[in-house]
Amino acid sequence: MLTTNPFDDDKLREECGIFGIWGADNAASFVALGLHALQHRGQEAAGIVSFDGHNYHAHRAMGHVAGNFDRDDIMRKLSGKVGIGHVRYSTTGETAMRNVQPLFAELSEGGFAVAHNGNLSNAMTLRAALNRRGSIFQSTSDTEVIIHLVATSSYSTTLDRLTDALGQVEGAYSLLCLTPDGLVACRDPLGIRPLVMGKLGEATIFASESVALDVIGATYLRDIEPGEMVIVNEAGIRSFRPFAPAKPRPCIFEHVYFSRPDSIVDGTSVYEVRKNIGAELAREAPIEADYVVPVPDSGVPAAIGFSQESGIPFELGIIRSHYVGRTFIQPTQEVRHLGVKLKHNANSALIQGKRIVLIDDSIVRGTTSVKIVQMMRDAGAKEVHMRIASPPTRHSCFYGVNTPERSKLIASQMSVEKMARYINADSLAFISIDGLYRALGDKRDGANPQRCDACFTGEYPTTLTDCDADGKPRPLSLVASR
Amino acid sequence: MLTTNPFDDDKLREECGIFGIWGADNAASFVALGLHALQHRGQEAAGIVSFDGHNYHAHRAMGHVAGNFDRDDIMRKLSGKVGIGHVRYSTTGETAMRNVQPLFAELSEGGFAVAHNGNLSNAMTLRAALNRRGSIFQSTSDTEVIIHLVATSSYSTTLDRLTDALGQVEGAYSLLCLTPDGLVACRDPLGIRPLVMGKLGEATIFASESVALDVIGATYLRDIEPGEMVIVNEAGIRSFRPFAPAKPRPCIFEHVYFSRPDSIVDGTSVYEVRKNIGAELAREAPIEADYVVPVPDSGVPAAIGFSQESGIPFELGIIRSHYVGRTFIQPTQEVRHLGVKLKHNANSALIQGKRIVLIDDSIVRGTTSVKIVQMMRDAGAKEVHMRIASPPTRHSCFYGVNTPERSKLIASQMSVEKMARYINADSLAFISIDGLYRALGDKRDGANPQRCDACFTGEYPTTLTDCDADGKPRPLSLVASR
Amino acid sequence: MLTTNPFDDDKLREECGIFGIWGADNAASFVALGLHALQHRGQEAAGIVSFDGHNYHAHRAMGHVAGNFDRDDIMRKLSGKVGIGHVRYSTTGETAMRNVQPLFAELSEGGFAVAHNGNLSNAMTLRAALNRRGSIFQSTSDTEVIIHLVATSSYSTTLDRLTDALGQVEGAYSLLCLTPDGLVACRDPLGIRPLVMGKLGEATIFASESVALDVIGATYLRDIEPGEMVIVNEAGIRSFRPFAPAKPRPCIFEHVYFSRPDSIVDGTSVYEVRKNIGAELAREAPIEADYVVPVPDSGVPAAIGFSQESGIPFELGIIRSHYVGRTFIQPTQEVRHLGVKLKHNANSALIQGKRIVLIDDSIVRGTTSVKIVQMMRDAGAKEVHMRIASPPTRHSCFYGVNTPERSKLIASQMSVEKMARYINADSLAFISIDGLYRALGDKRDGANPQRCDACFTGEYPTTLTDCDADGKPRPLSLVASR
Amino acid sequence: MLTTNPFDDDKLREECGIFGIWGADNAASFVALGLHALQHRGQEAAGIVSFDGHNYHAHRAMGHVAGNFDRDDIMRKLSGKVGIGHVRYSTTGETAMRNVQPLFAELSEGGFAVAHNGNLSNAMTLRAALNRRGSIFQSTSDTEVIIHLVATSSYSTTLDRLTDALGQVEGAYSLLCLTPDGLVACRDPLGIRPLVMGKLGEATIFASESVALDVIGATYLRDIEPGEMVIVNEAGIRSFRPFAPAKPRPCIFEHVYFSRPDSIVDGTSVYEVRKNIGAELAREAPIEADYVVPVPDSGVPAAIGFSQESGIPFELGIIRSHYVGRTFIQPTQEVRHLGVKLKHNANSALIQGKRIVLIDDSIVRGTTSVKIVQMMRDAGAKEVHMRIASPPTRHSCFYGVNTPERSKLIASQMSVEKMARYINADSLAFISIDGLYRALGDKRDGANPQRCDACFTGEYPTTLTDCDADGKPRPLSLVASR
Repeated sequence: MLTTNPFDDDKLREECGIFGIWGADNAASFVALGLHALQHRGQEAAGIVSFDGHNYHAHRAMGHVAGNFDRDDIMRKLSGKVGIGHVRYSTTGETAMRNVQPLFAELSEGGFAVAHNGNLSNAMTLRAALNRRGSIFQSTSDTEVIIHLVATSSYSTTLDRLTDALGQVEGAYSLLCLTPDGLVACRDPLGIRPLVMGKLGEATIFASESVALDVIGATYLRDIEPGEMVIVNEAGIRSFRPFAPAKPRPCIFEHVYFSRPDSIVDGTSVYEVRKNIGAELAREAPIEADYVVPVPDSGVPAAIGFSQESGIPFELGIIRSHYVGRTFIQPTQEVRHLGVKLKHNANSALIQGKRIVLIDDSIVRGTTSVKIVQMMRDAGAKEVHMRIASPPTRHSCFYGVNTPERSKLIASQMSVEKMARYINADSLAFISIDGLYRALGDKRDGANPQRCDACFTGEYPTTLTDCDADGKPRPLSLVASR
Repeated sequence: MLTTNPFDDDKLREECGIFGIWGADNAASFVALGLHALQHRGQEAAGIVSFDGHNYHAHRAMGHVAGNFDRDDIMRKLSGKVGIGHVRYSTTGETAMRNVQPLFAELSEGGFAVAHNGNLSNAMTLRAALNRRGSIFQSTSDTEVIIHLVATSSYSTTLDRLTDALGQVEGAYSLLCLTPDGLVACRDPLGIRPLVMGKLGEATIFASESVALDVIGATYLRDIEPGEMVIVNEAGIRSFRPFAPAKPRPCIFEHVYFSRPDSIVDGTSVYEVRKNIGAELAREAPIEADYVVPVPDSGVPAAIGFSQESGIPFELGIIRSHYVGRTFIQPTQEVRHLGVKLKHNANSALIQGKRIVLIDDSIVRGTTSVKIVQMMRDAGAKEVHMRIASPPTRHSCFYGVNTPERSKLIASQMSVEKMARYINADSLAFISIDGLYRALGDKRDGANPQRCDACFTGEYPTTLTDCDADGKPRPLSLVASR
Repeated sequence: MLTTNPFDDDKLREECGIFGIWGADNAASFVALGLHALQHRGQEAAGIVSFDGHNYHAHRAMGHVAGNFDRDDIMRKLSGKVGIGHVRYSTTGETAMRNVQPLFAELSEGGFAVAHNGNLSNAMTLRAALNRRGSIFQSTSDTEVIIHLVATSSYSTTLDRLTDALGQVEGAYSLLCLTPDGLVACRDPLGIRPLVMGKLGEATIFASESVALDVIGATYLRDIEPGEMVIVNEAGIRSFRPFAPAKPRPCIFEHVYFSRPDSIVDGTSVYEVRKNIGAELAREAPIEADYVVPVPDSGVPAAIGFSQESGIPFELGIIRSHYVGRTFIQPTQEVRHLGVKLKHNANSALIQGKRIVLIDDSIVRGTTSVKIVQMMRDAGAKEVHMRIASPPTRHSCFYGVNTPERSKLIASQMSVEKMARYINADSLAFISIDGLYRALGDKRDGANPQRCDACFTGEYPTTLTDCDADGKPRPLSLVASR
Repeated sequence: MLTTNPFDDDKLREECGIFGIWGADNAASFVALGLHALQHRGQEAAGIVSFDGHNYHAHRAMGHVAGNFDRDDIMRKLSGKVGIGHVRYSTTGETAMRNVQPLFAELSEGGFAVAHNGNLSNAMTLRAALNRRGSIFQSTSDTEVIIHLVATSSYSTTLDRLTDALGQVEGAYSLLCLTPDGLVACRDPLGIRPLVMGKLGEATIFASESVALDVIGATYLRDIEPGEMVIVNEAGIRSFRPFAPAKPRPCIFEHVYFSRPDSIVDGTSVYEVRKNIGAELAREAPIEADYVVPVPDSGVPAAIGFSQESGIPFELGIIRSHYVGRTFIQPTQEVRHLGVKLKHNANSALIQGKRIVLIDDSIVRGTTSVKIVQMMRDAGAKEVHMRIASPPTRHSCFYGVNTPERSKLIASQMSVEKMARYINADSLAFISIDGLYRALGDKRDGANPQRCDACFTGEYPTTLTDCDADGKPRPLSLVASR
């Protein structure tokens, strides 16, 4: 199999984006547009659940939002003034559909739909206990644990039952729940995954990123705060703080790669942060060269920052095909050995005989850095220097980001010098963790970091019940008895 | 209907890309990869015909190459060491499939497949005459005329019959024909549409652009010359000049927009030409501003050239979604009135309070220039200046480019000053026709232009039999009797 | 909408057929063939679950067995030596797929799949109680109640949990359960729905009707007895009697219409019983006529019996299209008013001027009897006499047969004389309830009928918790507190 | 592969049915219903072309009429008051769609659609000649020859061009042609294939069989006569006799098997003829037995005739599944060796210990007669006698019936005695050719038979240009020079 994403393959992947709206006619239409704007957060499946005051309407599909949620027959079905939606990266194969969110259940008090961005680090343990008590799971999703905890809670109101349920889970969650009592938005006490709130006329909107507000012409109001639960219904908007207070630890990688450059995350422009990172890199690891060349498209803002700080001209040395984003099964053996350049191609006329600084956002496995450096050399580059807009990625994420197992992370196996030789670059440098915080306008508090930077530092902000930091599952019988 | 290409809608569109290979195992696999690299030349349908020495195998499909020509069952069917393929922009609806190329016919001397980039300007006239003699057309494609002319020719060899047929047509054609006698490549006497020749091991390759050679690791040999016919078969490669000599007039718009920036067209780097155009623009129409902002992605090279020449920083003021390239049917009335930004979104944090120079490659109808200037103003731009990397587009193309009827071309209806007011720009300037030739390294010969620049100048290099220069059909009864 | 079943529309419909096998390689292949032989018991959906000793494999599909369970890719997936399957008549629309059986759940002790023929008359009541305790239902099927009762049972072995669950339900059930402990077959204490047991080599088989054994070349062993639970596993075949003994009441309508004529039900040939019914009818309601004409195909055996007893020749006066069994949406208004005869057509050359005795198996709504009598008159019949091979259907079934609401049953609204006028027959007669029992070789015990004949007599053999005998739901709050 | 048609596999197959209507709103709806009634004449594909006075609308699909021509979107597209349709048995594979009729071409004088029942015996020869003159064929259908002959005719009116074309063909054709001048119906000079004419209100209808008239409530007017051409348009109905007169030879097998029993063919009731054949058989080949058992469903009328003549009771000894008519791919090796009875099953309770006369309509290869006799023996039959309602089938048909090559016809290889042993019947008899004519009310004129009975006698009514009587193609170069 050959993909048109040869270089994107070596990225960490956000697992989800969520979007919800309360109080707009044809709510599902806005959800569809909002999800489309969040498509970069999950491309494998999408789903929408709407509520018309009496009935819930759901549609889920493998694939992109466009092509599924732009069909008249489907959108007409999703009637009502309230809706939530979800885009998902991950599970494949036959069991996929039952894991596509929003999940929905008929509870005794009425319907309950949930869209979840994040990952629970004690889901397996809770699931085993629920299963023993007779709860029947329909998916393999950690999110379903939340539903069964709500269903079997001894509290009576929906909010109390949800609070009871969330009190038992650990990990990362930005949640949107559709209930007969209203639309509930909630962010875990550390605020690991983002969630913003906006307004369009009378309608209230929640989304993973502000860009989804832009796309439908809505106004950004504020971030949902870590540990905050907001309910919107006919009585208005109410905010709760049902959990013990904690120092927030929002994910730093949202700035490095996940979020769109035109989003505002934690009150900061993602584009500006990335340009700052590029400038920091130019100061931390300067180099003499003819051109600054971004690995498109994610390396572009940092490359502009690097170019402006260093004075080295910014040039498109790699051209990206517009027709990518999907898998291209390599037809036959005959073409498999070719260095096929379906997604990226060197701009040879430019590169020939020149010294190049390549700017990329991260190195995960390193496999594709090897190819891209080689592509530059094949095009005649005299020198190829690589600068990376994040620190070395050395640890797995357990909070909703798809990371390869630790041993596959090249930076956990090699020194930077060895990596430089491995990818055959004339020089290689990563921004420092402190440099990264500086680009964000912070000074990193080593004892108590202001962000979750566990993928770089291994400092996990929560306990890890289901598995250890290497991702090895803990025996269930032991943990279950805690 | 809403498309994710709100700005691309206002582009001229190349109607086709072609690719052929002779002498490689699983030829169709290379054709599929080559067509993928030419996907920007036509996104609505694709087709491949292969020949295994005994039988022809064909597959055609609506949609992209990826998703159709990456399926094992289909590629296995397309066996043989020779193959040609076609990507197509244009016809929609129920009759589309029969127009998808390569067209194929069983002639008395054997199978005959043809892939055509270009357009014949006397096809209707020839078709009417053939029809009266009993030829039955299966498509509405002008290309089928060539097949019937070959079928009814009184000559005996395939090359003679093809030459006889092409001697009767006028207009633009770069052709690849698969016949029992070999693979024939041919370019019309003016060489209006491009066609290059390359080599991969023992295999000979033809393609609309050199980038298709890069993608499969092949070497560029030379352009097929205007009026040249090349046949490849087991006897080797032979070149013919069956037509009366003429001064070449290759399409200038290939450099402005159609070709990929990493292609070499007529021996020149497209990326470099576009940067030159940007630099020319900066000299011809200088302006004081804070940022040079490209309309992504086609405006980027000219914007870099403009920035480097003017010293104004290059910035991404408009962010393009990665998940575009397909139609997104706007679900309901409620969202239709919104200025929906599914494809592009302003980078508001950057734009706010700044003077912007927007660089775009062309203005066709002007409809989307209106929207993009407004998007900049909504994001808080203090001034918006527009610079266009081509002269005003005032005339229709009859040589294989899809242009709206002339009255829809804004530049044929308004002066540049009026256009500036219409799109609400603080200033608007187009590169001059002479500046455009300068960017190509030429001085335009006004009496005898070196390129086809009819879309800018109205100077058509051929007679127009089927219709007049406004696109109005001529009465068939008259022309038929010529 | 027009269906190709204009007359079958006026039939009662069995809701299910089930088939299971233990101990054959590629068990699912036999299940597929067995289900095909039971297709007349349910045409809307089918499903198979297999167990390979480690994993359960499931496939469910809308539509027939052929076309779904004859695809290599699907059948290969359904690996293992044990399998159960289900064909289903009924629910349509978006929620259909989740109701297609066999249902499956991962319980704490392992997988549990169930295929159910019958209907529980207290399912709504049990469901409400389970829901309040936190059980989440995924379907609207009454069968899912059984799974949740098993999941939440306080017993430990699968058989004990299943017995505990079935002890709480009332109504009709022939069940096949696939568990890690073996394949369990079970029939409710009254044995309302059929279930037979057979043998093929070393394999043990269960099926709704003996014809499914014939089709795969298996031998009929015996009926599963009312109230019997049989488990087959590597330890052999064991039989249990976990319920209080009760006098059996198997459904009499299986003989009238549901079962295939080549099946042996309760030890009697269905074909022979139907011929007996025809002969009884000829004795109970004799008539002078030229031809005995069956309403095809279900009326044929009774018509042969009537002809042989009466001496009136048997003739095909109505011809049935072979291409039926599926819905044919009537294209336009223009043809909707026509008496369209897509399924049946009068054999006019035969009928013209003759006295006809029409034999049908039952009259439900009467709508199509009207049409068929008219069809005979249009074809020129001199007299049309109707004889029905069952007593008047006056009551709804709550045990797994789809009956219209009582007020739609024509026999509950009209006397036989009035019905004769309504359908415009020269005479109309139904077999008596005693005659029906005689045809079965019994004398009906009025105090304690040997069969469930509630659809004719209203004498329901179980309490009806969820609704009253008219099908009106009882208030849940009251019944739930029992 | 296993089919649900184990016995039907051993039938000759009609290759087509046609239906046309002029002058009804939504003509295509009637065509769809009419084709459904003719579905037994061709199940592999269907097509409809309508004409709205300005444009032709076409839809073709693999599979049955129901499921394709009952969709609103498709039927709406087929607008107009004139339409023709075709059902087809035969070609499979990738080239199938282009052969699905009605064929359509844009000729210089306007659109031309044709639906053809029959087969031309000089199509290959004509095709080669047309091809050499430059005509390009799009299908492999013999029918396309007619279109090219019309297109290249030197006559000017449509009727003259069609007459010119048909004057060059030999073989069997019942044609419906949709032209701008009207709807043309035509039957070859020998009238080998049937074609009837009917009326529904103001509309004129043509169909292969009268049953298609019944289904839409139309009235049968008359047969189109051999050699007659009828044109219907706004000027009314006109009849022509453009060909030299010939003694008609309509196909006798229409009565034996092809036509539906409720059709009137050549003025005779098919049902009655088949009963007559059964009675003739009882007289020609009497036997002592307990039951007369039809092979369902085609053997039923003859079995009733045999029973009434012989006094032996008619009984359903073989039960046919309702859910057949489609291929059932036998899932795995394990079930392949079983004598699987997906379509037919013995009514063992009846058969056991009895002497059976089996009535079937024909024996082609004999393969399934072997199985059905065995099925009777397995069910315990004491004696099995086979009586066949047609003479031995010893010759191939070249007039539109799909026959196996001659060497596969068991009757061309064995005597009746040997066949009896081969199929393991206690006795076997076929009706005589004279008996068959008697059942039709005729005395066969040996010198000049009144019917085409070539499949029984080898007396072909036309020359066979393309191949000899064994189906061996003649060398084209020779025949082409005639």
